[in-house]
Amino acid sequence: MKSDLVRLSVPTSAREQLLDVTSRVQQTVTEMGLQDGIVTIFVPHTTAAVTINENADPDVVHDILFALDKAVPNHRQFRHGEGNSTAHVKSSLFGPSLQVIVQNGRLVLGTWQGIYFCEFDGPRTLKLFVQAFTG
Amino acid sequence: MKSDLVRLSVPTSAREQLLDVTSRVQQTVTEMGLQDGIVTIFVPHTTAAVTINENADPDVVHDILFALDKAVPNHRQFRHGEGNSTAHVKSSLFGPSLQVIVQNGRLVLGTWQGIYFCEFDGPRTLKLFVQAFTG
Amino acid sequence: MKSDLVRLSVPTSAREQLLDVTSRVQQTVTEMGLQDGIVTIFVPHTTAAVTINENADPDVVHDILFALDKAVPNHRQFRHGEGNSTAHVKSSLFGPSLQVIVQNGRLVLGTWQGIYFCEFDGPRTLKLFVQAFTG
Repeated sequence: MKSDLVRLSVPTSAREQLLDVTSRVQQTVTEMGLQDGIVTIFVPHTTAAVTINENADPDVVHDILFALDKAVPNHRQFRHGEGNSTAHVKSSLFGPSLQVIVQNGRLVLGTWQGIYFCEFDGPRTLKLFVQAFTG
Repeated sequence: MKSDLVRLSVPTSAREQLLDVTSRVQQTVTEMGLQDGIVTIFVPHTTAAVTINENADPDVVHDILFALDKAVPNHRQFRHGEGNSTAHVKSSLFGPSLQVIVQNGRLVLGTWQGIYFCEFDGPRTLKLFVQAFTG
Repeated sequence: MKSDLVRLSVPTSAREQLLDVTSRVQQTVTEMGLQDGIVTIFVPHTTAAVTINENADPDVVHDILFALDKAVPNHRQFRHGEGNSTAHVKSSLFGPSLQVIVQNGRLVLGTWQGIYFCEFDGPRTLKLFVQAFTG
């Protein structure tokens, strides 16, 4: 087994944003030479996350951010002084890590699936870790 | 290390449904011959998910779907034309992938834990991927 | 590849609590001798979870629990007789498993990230599984 870790830089351009990073993750897998195995995608931040969702209609991304905002509004009872408590909650709801299967050098995703880096407290430049396990 | 990928077919029978697939995943692990390692369970759809929850009282499943529906109602501000935006949101909230530890050929789950395939936009026939890593 | 499984005991002291277990997971990784690989953290309970969030300001933990409580209130339509349906829902929202990358014997976490064991139906003593994959 060989394990490789690559750190990607992800610039974001809005307070909340779902960025499709599928092609960057695929390119990283290709450059690592991973043929068959698992890739772990990890976000080393507490106000961001990673998820998988539809990559065809951009309205889906709008609706996801809208629904999250309604489920986790900016409660006046929040105590954290930085004013970004909703970002921390959303980070845990979507989660910091994902695993994607790799076969014959390709991410094994469904037809409509894209990997999204989730920014909840931008804009800024964040990191995304990609770890490959090869057979 | 050996990595094996099996694609299961999962027929669903309602718009929203939590289907207990624990025995199918265990059977797949047995057929793969995985003794000690990790199994990755991955849903290749953007309006479905996989989770782990209680497999004893079916009322728990009712309550989970009820609470999700209240947390993510069908907002009139949704833009996605297919009318299934809530399914996309719920898919990201529960997530597309899970890892379960395997020891001596058995899934290492808690007493009350079952693996649930989560359908949020059925009924239809979907896929579930099971990937084994053997030591 | 070597795979090792360690079962930790986690006593909780409140109905809802986010317990920072980062140092216990790091200690387990050290004792296992894992240098480079992945550690899988798994909660074998259906009313608890594991997440990663900020470990600096304790107000973040307060706000996370507060926001979750507002998103998943105790609906009168719940049917499960044990009165802990919200705990089951929160368990699936945050999820039972996480993967953290290990390099040179250290958990690869962001500056502000801590690993939190999430108790949603305590107080009691629960288990946390730590599974290492070494290269």
